[in-house]
Amino acid sequence: MEEETRKLSAFFKPSSVAIVGATKKIDKAGHVIFKNFVENKMRGVFKGELYAVNPTEDSIMGVKCYPSVTKIPGKLDSVVVVVPANVVPEIMKEAAAKKVTDVVIISSGFGEVGNHELEQQIVDIAKQAGIRFLGPNCLGVYDSKTGVDMLFLPETKVLATGDEVIATPRPIPGNIAIVTQSGAFGAAALDYLAGREVGVSKFVSFGNKADVNEGEMLRYLLHDSETKVIMLYVEDIKDGQEFIRVAETVTTRKPVVAIKSGRTDAGARAASSHTGALAGSDQIYDAVFEQTGILRAQDMDEFFHMGKALSMQPPASGRSVGIITDAGGPGIMAADECVLKGLRVERFSERTMGRFEKLKADGKLPQFASNLNPVDITGSGTDEMFELSTRILFQDPEICGIVLLGLHHTPAVQEEYIDKVAELAEGFDKPIVACDIGETEMALHTRARFDKHSIPAYSSPEDAARAMSGLVRYGLYLKKKGCFEEYIRSFMQSKRKK
Amino acid sequence: MEEETRKLSAFFKPSSVAIVGATKKIDKAGHVIFKNFVENKMRGVFKGELYAVNPTEDSIMGVKCYPSVTKIPGKLDSVVVVVPANVVPEIMKEAAAKKVTDVVIISSGFGEVGNHELEQQIVDIAKQAGIRFLGPNCLGVYDSKTGVDMLFLPETKVLATGDEVIATPRPIPGNIAIVTQSGAFGAAALDYLAGREVGVSKFVSFGNKADVNEGEMLRYLLHDSETKVIMLYVEDIKDGQEFIRVAETVTTRKPVVAIKSGRTDAGARAASSHTGALAGSDQIYDAVFEQTGILRAQDMDEFFHMGKALSMQPPASGRSVGIITDAGGPGIMAADECVLKGLRVERFSERTMGRFEKLKADGKLPQFASNLNPVDITGSGTDEMFELSTRILFQDPEICGIVLLGLHHTPAVQEEYIDKVAELAEGFDKPIVACDIGETEMALHTRARFDKHSIPAYSSPEDAARAMSGLVRYGLYLKKKGCFEEYIRSFMQSKRKK
Repeated sequence: MEEETRKLSAFFKPSSVAIVGATKKIDKAGHVIFKNFVENKMRGVFKGELYAVNPTEDSIMGVKCYPSVTKIPGKLDSVVVVVPANVVPEIMKEAAAKKVTDVVIISSGFGEVGNHELEQQIVDIAKQAGIRFLGPNCLGVYDSKTGVDMLFLPETKVLATGDEVIATPRPIPGNIAIVTQSGAFGAAALDYLAGREVGVSKFVSFGNKADVNEGEMLRYLLHDSETKVIMLYVEDIKDGQEFIRVAETVTTRKPVVAIKSGRTDAGARAASSHTGALAGSDQIYDAVFEQTGILRAQDMDEFFHMGKALSMQPPASGRSVGIITDAGGPGIMAADECVLKGLRVERFSERTMGRFEKLKADGKLPQFASNLNPVDITGSGTDEMFELSTRILFQDPEICGIVLLGLHHTPAVQEEYIDKVAELAEGFDKPIVACDIGETEMALHTRARFDKHSIPAYSSPEDAARAMSGLVRYGLYLKKKGCFEEYIRSFMQSKRKK
Repeated sequence: MEEETRKLSAFFKPSSVAIVGATKKIDKAGHVIFKNFVENKMRGVFKGELYAVNPTEDSIMGVKCYPSVTKIPGKLDSVVVVVPANVVPEIMKEAAAKKVTDVVIISSGFGEVGNHELEQQIVDIAKQAGIRFLGPNCLGVYDSKTGVDMLFLPETKVLATGDEVIATPRPIPGNIAIVTQSGAFGAAALDYLAGREVGVSKFVSFGNKADVNEGEMLRYLLHDSETKVIMLYVEDIKDGQEFIRVAETVTTRKPVVAIKSGRTDAGARAASSHTGALAGSDQIYDAVFEQTGILRAQDMDEFFHMGKALSMQPPASGRSVGIITDAGGPGIMAADECVLKGLRVERFSERTMGRFEKLKADGKLPQFASNLNPVDITGSGTDEMFELSTRILFQDPEICGIVLLGLHHTPAVQEEYIDKVAELAEGFDKPIVACDIGETEMALHTRARFDKHSIPAYSSPEDAARAMSGLVRYGLYLKKKGCFEEYIRSFMQSKRKK
């Protein structure tokens, strides 16, 4: 890892951190952030030294308060700044004097509202001092492993009824890193992933990205052993050439899923008034993503669906997928979407057809089950039929990925086949995704059970197809780059370790 | 209503019904269906006469059993057939002798598995006797108001743990009718709508549709006072000319949202092996839907999102929409999707811009809130700001629809603005849709509260945009047909009655 990249690690794992603007006032961001650190330290999750900086207090939550970072004894790794914008340059100078490595500027009121000069001041100070910083105008960092948590959004809210409810949750630890230009989108992503029980390794919101940008963050995450998949929300990309260079390196080792908003004129105008982003032509972004192997999602749902699939399943070695269903209509919908996404849903080989015919002859599949593609075990389908059919497709060398639609409504389908299919999947490096439709108990149970086995489950046939298309797109890119075998080897290794 | 259409009402509200194939055996469809009727009769929901037909039993669940429908005393409206396929023609003959109006043939084993001759036999008997029938190979009818419930799929299942969970729920009563060729998709739709608390008036699954088809069902539902929106799943359409004629009449009074699967070669092949549907060119279907004003959904999620929007909100009078957000990034995503769907997201008029400027001058909006379109009240947004901004857009005659992104994560946003916005909306015939992102408590609470006020809420900015596009597409169609004013008048009237 290069020196400049190494420097960024103090954002995520500082041996000491000071919160400048820490306060006792409950509704202030400086209070929420400081409290996050205090609590995580008490729980033993955050292991670094913690300092409060506020000239008007002696101590906050039992932690001694310093009037300035320069008064803090010993070495200081990282500073989080939560003070009004006009005070930030002064804090930056003090951080420079203290020789800190990294600064996170949560404060807003810079370039995003036209104060470009103020923003330039902090850029200059940081550059001269060799300080790297995130922001300004950002949510900063959340690291599920080290207890670094700068999210100042209220974790709970109290409704008019007096009920306290979860408002901005933290997802469980996992292997997905979220890198986002929009703090609001970032918070929403955490809420989504927490509710869907998808795990997150690191969360970085860089707002105006006056210093550290998406390219550098990708390079850092390439070397982060906690992160297997990188999910990126951007409105514009700065330093395009450098970004391309970095992205091409990263995507051969870790999948990057991106959502780039501001695709239309109206969207670009909104982006420009939001962060001052000059979006540029959407075709150019398409080309950059294509060239660098970044998987661009068409919308928020696809973004999350592809990220989840890549975090759980290996990429596919080709476009040809097999669909298994107990529900004819949804099977057709999945086949349609696969084809629309550039996958192939073709008749099975003679050998595979023969194996299905054998099952029928043995009375193990209904006589009128379809063994074209989709395989339709029909409404008389059972857990055993799902298992037997899935095994055939895992063993068919012409099938590169499996979409399993296990609609639970039919009388004989229970949940045991899920465990059996997951066991089967262990023996293959071929991806599988699942779908069950419905929003009540058994549907939620079915999807959760698949997820628990690292078979990503979705609530519509099209979502499952799109998830599979992410696995196929990534596999084809790796093949083009000659890195497919290497990636699969390392993926399967880390899977076995788990 | 024509005589032939009137005849169909016995499917939904029979004054007497016989279940042929009723049995005591717990795992049989004939048992589940009969039990549904018995229970709904005991609850006082099903008010018709109920008969069991089974030559080997004297009584089932306390109801006297007849050896044949011909032995049932008095007039018989409707017969539900749940016996093996080869016995069905005989039952049909008895129904003819008994002069029943309608028959629902749940039994499978006909055209869908190649037994076209057997299917033709029952068609001939029915035609000669003037009987109308649903199916064969279908789930039949569920009517939330009359207690007719032919769903034989297990309402609950028992997991390996011994826990009993909801498996095929019934949605709450509401104004959406589901008409589906695929029983599996139908069951899945019920599960989805039940979980999302979207109400259903009638559910009709017609399987092989050897007699009653989608066109006739649309015509019937046109006159059904419980139904405001018709949602149609089809794999093929029979009798295209007649369908077009009917659909053109229906869509001027009630919106029809359709999903037509088998769009691709692979999908069409799957459809053909599923129900023998010969899909024909997808472009032709596109043209038919376009001509008849049927709103074709691109996937399952859009299907449900548009249906929900049209059941709650009036159509838009034009393409121009206003977006309000407290989250910059998601605001851009919504603007993008609106434009991609053919809507217009343009700078507001001078007058409207001025009103936003006035709010800023009065300190009622943050200084740096954007009053372009989207309006971005920023992360400092409050409930009051949402209310004030939404009011301005309701009052702007150039804005035809409002997309409100109320992300709850920001510190000051609570839930009170939802009630205020809903109150505001009452005074206008302009549609509004909402979005909050997240899958934990406050997000679920926010969306549910919008829904309760008949402002349809969605979990992604793009979903909200697509829902609005449904309202715009339908509004433009009504305008083209000269029926917009009339529809709005009747919509607002029924809204006030509620």
